[in-house]
Amino acid sequence: MESFADAKYVLDTIWLLISGCLVMWMAAGFAMLETGLVRTKNTTAILTKNISLYAVACVAYYVIGYDLMYGAGNDFLGSGFLTSSASDGDHSGLSDFFFQVVFVATAASIVSGTVAERIKFWPFMVFTLILTAFIYPIQGHWSWGGTNLFGLIEGFNDFAGSTIVHSVGGWAALAGAILLGARKGKYGADGRINPIPGANLPLATLGTFILWLGWFGFNGGSQLALGSRDDANAISAVIANTNIAACGGALIALILTQILYKKVDLTMVLNGALSGLVAITAGPDYPSMGLALIIGGIGGALVVFAVPLFDKLKIDDPVGALSVHLVNGIWGTLAVGIFNSDISLFAQIKFILVVGVFTFFVSFAVWYVLKLTMGIRVDEEEEAVGVDVKEFGLHAYPEFVERPIH
Amino acid sequence: MESFADAKYVLDTIWLLISGCLVMWMAAGFAMLETGLVRTKNTTAILTKNISLYAVACVAYYVIGYDLMYGAGNDFLGSGFLTSSASDGDHSGLSDFFFQVVFVATAASIVSGTVAERIKFWPFMVFTLILTAFIYPIQGHWSWGGTNLFGLIEGFNDFAGSTIVHSVGGWAALAGAILLGARKGKYGADGRINPIPGANLPLATLGTFILWLGWFGFNGGSQLALGSRDDANAISAVIANTNIAACGGALIALILTQILYKKVDLTMVLNGALSGLVAITAGPDYPSMGLALIIGGIGGALVVFAVPLFDKLKIDDPVGALSVHLVNGIWGTLAVGIFNSDISLFAQIKFILVVGVFTFFVSFAVWYVLKLTMGIRVDEEEEAVGVDVKEFGLHAYPEFVERPIH
Amino acid sequence: MESFADAKYVLDTIWLLISGCLVMWMAAGFAMLETGLVRTKNTTAILTKNISLYAVACVAYYVIGYDLMYGAGNDFLGSGFLTSSASDGDHSGLSDFFFQVVFVATAASIVSGTVAERIKFWPFMVFTLILTAFIYPIQGHWSWGGTNLFGLIEGFNDFAGSTIVHSVGGWAALAGAILLGARKGKYGADGRINPIPGANLPLATLGTFILWLGWFGFNGGSQLALGSRDDANAISAVIANTNIAACGGALIALILTQILYKKVDLTMVLNGALSGLVAITAGPDYPSMGLALIIGGIGGALVVFAVPLFDKLKIDDPVGALSVHLVNGIWGTLAVGIFNSDISLFAQIKFILVVGVFTFFVSFAVWYVLKLTMGIRVDEEEEAVGVDVKEFGLHAYPEFVERPIH
Repeated sequence: MESFADAKYVLDTIWLLISGCLVMWMAAGFAMLETGLVRTKNTTAILTKNISLYAVACVAYYVIGYDLMYGAGNDFLGSGFLTSSASDGDHSGLSDFFFQVVFVATAASIVSGTVAERIKFWPFMVFTLILTAFIYPIQGHWSWGGTNLFGLIEGFNDFAGSTIVHSVGGWAALAGAILLGARKGKYGADGRINPIPGANLPLATLGTFILWLGWFGFNGGSQLALGSRDDANAISAVIANTNIAACGGALIALILTQILYKKVDLTMVLNGALSGLVAITAGPDYPSMGLALIIGGIGGALVVFAVPLFDKLKIDDPVGALSVHLVNGIWGTLAVGIFNSDISLFAQIKFILVVGVFTFFVSFAVWYVLKLTMGIRVDEEEEAVGVDVKEFGLHAYPEFVERPIH
Repeated sequence: MESFADAKYVLDTIWLLISGCLVMWMAAGFAMLETGLVRTKNTTAILTKNISLYAVACVAYYVIGYDLMYGAGNDFLGSGFLTSSASDGDHSGLSDFFFQVVFVATAASIVSGTVAERIKFWPFMVFTLILTAFIYPIQGHWSWGGTNLFGLIEGFNDFAGSTIVHSVGGWAALAGAILLGARKGKYGADGRINPIPGANLPLATLGTFILWLGWFGFNGGSQLALGSRDDANAISAVIANTNIAACGGALIALILTQILYKKVDLTMVLNGALSGLVAITAGPDYPSMGLALIIGGIGGALVVFAVPLFDKLKIDDPVGALSVHLVNGIWGTLAVGIFNSDISLFAQIKFILVVGVFTFFVSFAVWYVLKLTMGIRVDEEEEAVGVDVKEFGLHAYPEFVERPIH
Repeated sequence: MESFADAKYVLDTIWLLISGCLVMWMAAGFAMLETGLVRTKNTTAILTKNISLYAVACVAYYVIGYDLMYGAGNDFLGSGFLTSSASDGDHSGLSDFFFQVVFVATAASIVSGTVAERIKFWPFMVFTLILTAFIYPIQGHWSWGGTNLFGLIEGFNDFAGSTIVHSVGGWAALAGAILLGARKGKYGADGRINPIPGANLPLATLGTFILWLGWFGFNGGSQLALGSRDDANAISAVIANTNIAACGGALIALILTQILYKKVDLTMVLNGALSGLVAITAGPDYPSMGLALIIGGIGGALVVFAVPLFDKLKIDDPVGALSVHLVNGIWGTLAVGIFNSDISLFAQIKFILVVGVFTFFVSFAVWYVLKLTMGIRVDEEEEAVGVDVKEFGLHAYPEFVERPIH
């Protein structure tokens, strides 16, 4: 180290690496959250999907996605192959790759929760491959890749990816959920909505805490630099705001479920915290902590109303990922347009629509082709017995005596 | 970055943020530890309490506590409101806020374990609010806030909070435990003490490891600076000592339970490790690793004797938090007076007493008012069936067939 | 901070500390992985062993091992006592001690999985003591201590310890497994191999994710410096390669189990990811990500074939630690000789043999003496009922109704 430029290079690089480690840890958070919220008979499946999708996402983004997103190319599509664009600039190119690749895995993790308990494993993996190699990187090329898609999304602002990561995962999941249909028994013939409780709430809570911790890297690392007083101050604000937005989401969900149902609903509190986190993600840098608390709190309210709404629409989402990531991805992006006077709300809406329409319809098409070719849903018997036994041959809790639900 | 002062500012700031993330992670550790040590029928309750108290603590400290602790004010009480005092000095003001706020959550987490399995949810949340908005910040104003309370606690030394955080949590918990009374069936009419084993020891162990990891931030971050050789050396000593003190606590508990009970008791080993951590927290900076090992080891011995002692006093503490945090918070603070020749033992005793008397009696008064108004204990039927079903409506492990204990 | 040398000192030190925290976290990973893969009746035992071995390893290495490894001494053995060699050089001496001591604990953690479900607790602890005070440090003195053992292992290369940590743990475990014999019922009289499924796959998966995260510190910290552009670039490459090697291992195990067994085997995918991590550990610094993917992928293939091979040899390894750490420790070390043109394959083979022969035979002798004196295996009745009840007096899941396997 011989200059302040060297010091800055080192600090910027290590901050991306540390943040990337925290975001990688979110993969464990999704695995635990989703494991806790599905039934025991589909637990091995969700675990296998979550570790496998992380592996596929990293390889697909390495081989194809990263250069499609950040390679020169044109306004629609980056070019290149095999991370040729990971060159050292203000920080190590590979630290940038590592930080970006764990974001892709996050988007893919969102999908696995929504389609849980009824999807076939291999078609899911094919979808993950296409999402992480093509869909995510292409829309990311327009935004973080800097092309603005022929000016169409000019002026948008999405600090750490409420739209680019979370709603993209949400749209892809929504398309899958529609084509898959609901789990057997979820919606009764008489219009009744049958709750299917998660099998292991301690793990769901652990998953939420893991995600909360990982989010400090997700948002804090998105400053993309550490080596100046301004960066250090910005990261401090981002982390303090991220934390208090999650608190706001949890508290509002806590209070609302008490008022509405006369009982505090833990799974809503967990999803409330996560909603606060998603909501602040588009703009954790500009607000005061008080405003961050409000933005997160609104996120917590939205999730309490969105979960029954999706049920009314008979869109079955075992873990509430659509309510958390799609609804609050949109809300968080709008909030920047509303509260940050530098950013136009109209630009934010255009941005949400462009990314949403692209991601939903391409995802829908991919799921549809998979449905026609490989089939995406396990057969009735397998669904009744549980996906674990037939497709994976391993019970997740083989020694525990269970009282199956449905 | 243009100067070494800038570099120091950045390093000091990022170290507070990274350490703060580790301390936030301790919230997950407490949640898992306590979940593992209570019965299945009260598991949703403990999970909900732990995530909710973290959220309340952060908001209460943001709105009121932080400025009560660090705002100018007078010798007894800081002034201000809404973190106006979080101004940038040697490091980002918000990084300081973030590091401080996760400490408050730690103190509140200690309480939830002791009052588990019989407390009502909402009165607990009100107590948490008062603890984190007022009680913790007021005593913190005297010590870390620097006023010395009209000179009364002059000369005390508490590096990372054996007294200020851990025994404060312990005193608040003790007051609650006395007013709550023991769990039904814990103490037989014939004077028998009935063990009530924890339902999930893997989660209790995981929680202990999480806390151990988080403690490196708790103690390491309390150096409050990183940007010099001296700071880097000090943090290295703090982390090495913190680690070996935990080892000492675990090992002594291991050996003692083998000698006393002819069986190694895992829960004692876990609490032994935590006791070592609490014990070293008042002074992880000055000792050699050998002395740290001894201080932690004595902590491990204390917990083995304190747990049955509290039972003899019929103070029911399902997770052993009083033995860990209160007893060893006192021991750790005394140890600094004994082993660190710069610090007067008398000053340490005075400091322990002042903080203890204040926290215990104010907490007792608050719990007492809550008992008279909202009531703090669930009714007998609810306790028998479990708090989860009636108050939360969600069983933590709904598909697992259980053999209830008591 | 007054010079760039100061800045480098601070950065090198803090990177060792942060990395050391991540490696310490691996102890939790091993605990969860092994807990998930054994039966419920032996769960308290594995938890107690894992936290206790960490404590013993730290104390033993502090009192004896560290100076045996890094003290001056002679070519065979270092000298000194009580970390006298932890002096400050390019970074804080205690940060170096902390980073080294968590590596020792990793080696010891490997053993506990292989000997699970049938070993007596105290003889295991004695072995751990000898492994961490003597065996590990002595062979480490030759390699990382820099003596090359009278030139015998000249020219070897083992960046973060595929051989020095992982295969050493593996050889020590192999010796124990041979002398212990298989678990009752694992190998039928008719030559049948009876699968004994792990009791809690969510925890096994969590453990794998924890280890994966911790490995970023394990390999990234082994650069031993951060304070220059070259170091920052090197660490970035190390972490990116470590991540993608794990992905490669997981994916190949995924695909191979589907092909071989027509079912995806989650435990193989977990062990595949870990195999990729072990395989890349000897040389995460030199390859491209593509090559790292291949090295890790071969690791994933090896584990799929090694697990049944050990079973054919009737070497019973409940968690597959030999296949992961020994087989892939060897493979990873060979890979450096094959792919890194600067390193001789012959030197790598010599190095593997010297360390392997020493560790295996000394471990075998120690286990043998323990077998003759204390006895190393629990009696038949205890094994049938489970180690937890008799030796530990605590059931890990006391309220859950179980359906014992075997």
